Amino acid sequence: MKIVAALGGNALLRRGEPLTAEAQARNLAAASGALADLSRNHAMIVTHGNGPQVGVLALQDAAVPGVGNFPLDILGAGTTGMIGYMVAQEFRNKLPGRQVAMLLTQIEVDPKDSAFGRPTKPIGPVYTEEEAKTLAAERGWSIAPDGKGFRRVVPSPKPIRILEVDSLRLLVGAGVVVICAGGGGIPVVFDERGNVRGVEAVIEKDLSAGLVARDVAADALLLLTDADGVMLDWGSPSERRLERATPEEILAYEFPEGSMGPKVQAAAAFVSKTGGIAGIGRLEDASEILVGKAGTLIVPGDAGGT
Amino acid sequence: MKIVAALGGNALLRRGEPLTAEAQARNLAAASGALADLSRNHAMIVTHGNGPQVGVLALQDAAVPGVGNFPLDILGAGTTGMIGYMVAQEFRNKLPGRQVAMLLTQIEVDPKDSAFGRPTKPIGPVYTEEEAKTLAAERGWSIAPDGKGFRRVVPSPKPIRILEVDSLRLLVGAGVVVICAGGGGIPVVFDERGNVRGVEAVIEKDLSAGLVARDVAADALLLLTDADGVMLDWGSPSERRLERATPEEILAYEFPEGSMGPKVQAAAAFVSKTGGIAGIGRLEDASEILVGKAGTLIVPGDAGGT
Repeated sequence: MKIVAALGGNALLRRGEPLTAEAQARNLAAASGALADLSRNHAMIVTHGNGPQVGVLALQDAAVPGVGNFPLDILGAGTTGMIGYMVAQEFRNKLPGRQVAMLLTQIEVDPKDSAFGRPTKPIGPVYTEEEAKTLAAERGWSIAPDGKGFRRVVPSPKPIRILEVDSLRLLVGAGVVVICAGGGGIPVVFDERGNVRGVEAVIEKDLSAGLVARDVAADALLLLTDADGVMLDWGSPSERRLERATPEEILAYEFPEGSMGPKVQAAAAFVSKTGGIAGIGRLEDASEILVGKAGTLIVPGDAGGT
Repeated sequence: MKIVAALGGNALLRRGEPLTAEAQARNLAAASGALADLSRNHAMIVTHGNGPQVGVLALQDAAVPGVGNFPLDILGAGTTGMIGYMVAQEFRNKLPGRQVAMLLTQIEVDPKDSAFGRPTKPIGPVYTEEEAKTLAAERGWSIAPDGKGFRRVVPSPKPIRILEVDSLRLLVGAGVVVICAGGGGIPVVFDERGNVRGVEAVIEKDLSAGLVARDVAADALLLLTDADGVMLDWGSPSERRLERATPEEILAYEFPEGSMGPKVQAAAAFVSKTGGIAGIGRLEDASEILVGKAGTLIVPGDAGGT
């Protein structure tokens, strides 16, 4: 089986934890065991988020006068290098004898994507409302509520095309465990002369993982996070995990704003378009999700739903 | 022909110029034309340095309290992402229709390398002696004179083995223009259980480029910088460019400390071990260096020297 697994931010950093090298290495080592186990018997492509990291890199970048001033595409590439390295090293250590490689991935977006006029993707630390408003005024940020605080938000256009798709397929075809599309991939647009340039945005990593999965003809897409799966009646006494659904069934539910929306959307699109399966759930449960024993499994319509 | 080209720091940043995204993009666009021209007719693998960038990233990392504290291997991976992205995008725009891919490269070093006890590789900005001494005391840095000022210096162990060598060969064999071994590659060591971990060091990029060239069975190694080539009697009235030499001949000369030493060493080693050719000179002269019309060409002993 060929599996694309998207690591949520929590694979590296738990909510509220300070973003340090030690914390990320420790979390990654603890969380990646289940996925490494799966990689022993399956072709594996791993993608990951970078929301907290790219926000912190942007803060650090602004903290030393006279240098830096890097736009989000370059900062995103920086986090891709850092996180991709940590992930690649961890998988290499857990899979002796297997080639593991991190490929930098530029992903085309539409310069006319409506997301550019409506920043929604939270990056960086959580601030108090007052801190956030001061920073927004000073730095020209957009901000939005996030849990009990506020965060910087940036545009999150839809991924269209992976520029390095041939290289990606080549490596996957040779049995390499590939780390790619980190932070959703580096968002780029084509200008009228066919030249590529980066744009100030962060692509939703789950949608990019779905694009990777279609491009490598994966059998399964795993969207891994710190939640048990897709929850119905969330926060009410009748709250329960949706165990199995077709794309049509899962898209008929309404989910609270937040990270679950893009996951459901990416999972349903992958299953509809390819006839493969998609799972949403805890990183530690990766193997169980695939066989329907944990998380939420999205399966093609003719395979039967709930 | 298969060519490995190492871009000196000046491809992205001129000496004394502030490290900004704009300056690096502008310099790279101006400097990479000659190398892109060569890439049209030859297999090309591009490596690059990261001395100024990794030093600045370390300063930025230290500037925001409570987060970061990343060791040099992770910071190096970050600069590899940022610079590798800029280089990959520039080559892609100059070579429409060719696949260009940036592969993150971990390179094994010897934990007993004497370099760990003797930091020599300058990174980051140039400081006055007083500034440098204050920073050294505050942050535990080693510092050393560099030109008219002082810079932070870090250990620079010898590169032994590229962990991603199979992936690198696969991509090169498929005609992909590969960007790799950025910043000399990420230095890692194996522990007694066979696990890999990063170390606080920066590998000399020209030595890593030589290792890449041997690993992909390149025909030519180009070490590109902002100097005309290897100069004899440097700074004296009889100063002149060494046009052509065998490894034995060039190793018999003495060169002033600085960046030329590693270039001569890497070039001579590549030519001795493989029978290929190696050139040292200006990035803009890449094509002319290969045919002996500019720079310094190092050729096998039986091909005749000066």
